[in-house]
Amino acid sequence: MQSNIITLLTDFGSKDNYLAIMKAVILTINPNVVFVDITNEIPPQNLWEATFQLGTAASYFPDNTIHLAIVDPEVGTSRKPLLLQTPHGTFIGPDNGIFTLTLKKDYLYSPEAPASNPACEMLVPDECQAYHLTNPKFWRHPISDTFHGRDIFGPVAAHVSTGVPIEELGVEVKRVKSMVLPNLIRTDNKIEGKVIHTDQFGNLITNIPKEALTGHNVTIKIGGHSISNVDNTYAGGKGAQALIGSYGLLEIAINLDNAEQVLGLSINTPVEINIKY
Amino acid sequence: MQSNIITLLTDFGSKDNYLAIMKAVILTINPNVVFVDITNEIPPQNLWEATFQLGTAASYFPDNTIHLAIVDPEVGTSRKPLLLQTPHGTFIGPDNGIFTLTLKKDYLYSPEAPASNPACEMLVPDECQAYHLTNPKFWRHPISDTFHGRDIFGPVAAHVSTGVPIEELGVEVKRVKSMVLPNLIRTDNKIEGKVIHTDQFGNLITNIPKEALTGHNVTIKIGGHSISNVDNTYAGGKGAQALIGSYGLLEIAINLDNAEQVLGLSINTPVEINIKY
Amino acid sequence: MQSNIITLLTDFGSKDNYLAIMKAVILTINPNVVFVDITNEIPPQNLWEATFQLGTAASYFPDNTIHLAIVDPEVGTSRKPLLLQTPHGTFIGPDNGIFTLTLKKDYLYSPEAPASNPACEMLVPDECQAYHLTNPKFWRHPISDTFHGRDIFGPVAAHVSTGVPIEELGVEVKRVKSMVLPNLIRTDNKIEGKVIHTDQFGNLITNIPKEALTGHNVTIKIGGHSISNVDNTYAGGKGAQALIGSYGLLEIAINLDNAEQVLGLSINTPVEINIKY
Repeated sequence: MQSNIITLLTDFGSKDNYLAIMKAVILTINPNVVFVDITNEIPPQNLWEATFQLGTAASYFPDNTIHLAIVDPEVGTSRKPLLLQTPHGTFIGPDNGIFTLTLKKDYLYSPEAPASNPACEMLVPDECQAYHLTNPKFWRHPISDTFHGRDIFGPVAAHVSTGVPIEELGVEVKRVKSMVLPNLIRTDNKIEGKVIHTDQFGNLITNIPKEALTGHNVTIKIGGHSISNVDNTYAGGKGAQALIGSYGLLEIAINLDNAEQVLGLSINTPVEINIKY
Repeated sequence: MQSNIITLLTDFGSKDNYLAIMKAVILTINPNVVFVDITNEIPPQNLWEATFQLGTAASYFPDNTIHLAIVDPEVGTSRKPLLLQTPHGTFIGPDNGIFTLTLKKDYLYSPEAPASNPACEMLVPDECQAYHLTNPKFWRHPISDTFHGRDIFGPVAAHVSTGVPIEELGVEVKRVKSMVLPNLIRTDNKIEGKVIHTDQFGNLITNIPKEALTGHNVTIKIGGHSISNVDNTYAGGKGAQALIGSYGLLEIAINLDNAEQVLGLSINTPVEINIKY
Repeated sequence: MQSNIITLLTDFGSKDNYLAIMKAVILTINPNVVFVDITNEIPPQNLWEATFQLGTAASYFPDNTIHLAIVDPEVGTSRKPLLLQTPHGTFIGPDNGIFTLTLKKDYLYSPEAPASNPACEMLVPDECQAYHLTNPKFWRHPISDTFHGRDIFGPVAAHVSTGVPIEELGVEVKRVKSMVLPNLIRTDNKIEGKVIHTDQFGNLITNIPKEALTGHNVTIKIGGHSISNVDNTYAGGKGAQALIGSYGLLEIAINLDNAEQVLGLSINTPVEINIKY
């Protein structure tokens, strides 16, 4: 889909020129591209952080945006280079599960999240199309085995932005890789989740959606702390506080301080919600 | 004022997608916006750093630039969302003092800075207008209590950039919040100031303006060090050196080294200037 | 050369507003400029990192790109402000060796690299032109002694981007500063090089080009480790592995880990290649 916005989500960091090289290759093909960095500070090879950051950001962009997501520890092997066309954006990157939350976009927000999800492959949803990128005509040559962002993904994104039909880029596939997502375990009066991300402010973001808490009196247990009310704002909080953050997920914070550091908790810490009806 | 440049100054950091989400919301309203990040590495909730960085950078931009400044520990409370129209730019952010140096722009550069400034409110200067943003028509819905950059400030900036008259955005106010600024204490032959910022290079930047030193022989005392001349350049300096930095303020540096680390000094360290007439 | 892409490579970091101020000055002269940051995380005053990052990135950009490179410990002294016109881009920055790899662009990739290169000046190659920037008409006034990115280099880049002929900017010079580059020492069956850069992933990048290894059986010795094959991909590697990275240079990596930290090696570590014919 013709577009001029290309977003970048990578583990390239900011001290090297890898990101700039990829942007340079794209601008050489389409000088009218506008870049928006989602983040390039994904911890090296951390696919969970990548799918979380992409899955919670992409829907805010215009529907004709092209999203480049490159966290690619298997670069140069048989893992497929992939393009996903969805109703809300075009996504380009390795077929390694990085698009899991993009394709299962309601996953984090459904109080009825499935109790287990061991699949490492998934069917492409009906409203989307997936292409295995196989046409070297739209790549940069010679192709390295270590930097497909520069040699395949970037050039393909640039060509898509100029209006090249996606059918020319490769072969449609019906299954793509999927990550195992962090489950909620729900019983009648209890929800068990965990911390799935910690942010710049040290807020501990859980996989428990707003909808699971709405209308109930709850007690929240995390790392030996018990929190018996859900605040609306950070301001006014005393000690560990619970609130619904901007992702629509329960988060644990400390007003004007860093909950991750002060509480000594981090990603994967279990969180338990006891519901009083 | 119609414009296509929007600057960003936040404490959002670079590892999360918060900044990208705000940019995405803006681009959805006005795809022609060009972003310039002033900095997104303001230490969390640090309003002094925010007002310093914004106040010393904004005047270099074209006068029709829109500046978004979001360091907002009171998000979701009764603190007002604000728009300031000044002769040199449009400023949008929370009414929490973040615009203090924007409105008192000569403060840092006047050798006659007032001896005390305890006010926590100030009158909007005659050449400026301030609006309490109250019109939800220009916001993103539903409004969260935790991310007004995405839900209020970003959308308002985008609408202003498309030419929406600022009168439609809210209600004019005559007073806005103001921070207590670091004072200079001046006597006949002495100026007492302090370090107000340390930069990437470890340079210690003080609140003593060039004008206070010009034409005098001075001795500068800081952290047990005594410096008896003001250099023109970093190069050639031996040990702790004093010079007028690019902000037009006295700074203490060490050539090819990091004064903050080597001297063990930092923000708020007192600086004393003895003037020999 | 008229252009709208200006790249930035500096040691300004991301916590200060120095980079934004330079961009603001440029946008005030030419509001149509598009910025691409190569990196602004060059360690303070580190000219080797600067010339490496610029020299390995610039050629990927369109030939009419303007590259601003500001690592400038001698700012305000007699060191010359410089513009280089090359067939593959216009380069603007201090004459302190920062453009060494730009002008000797084959240096890193030639297996016949000269055995020594002690020169601290070099002749400008025939296909390039160098100008000492001397015309204050294209500068911002008053000129500080501490921030020529804002006062000279940025404004000159902006004026070049609007189409100002480079002859108007200053005086042509035939010699420019050059850095001593890290040499390869080659004998019949041995190559001695060293680690010249470590990246975001902890990969140890050497100055040994792909061409020096191609078609030979080699043993690679570094920091007490001996590696007897060159892998194609990071994936599948066990322990310290050698491969040709995306710069076309030999690098030492550890699959899904950080070789710099795990091996305790870093820049300047010697690397020895033994070739078995």
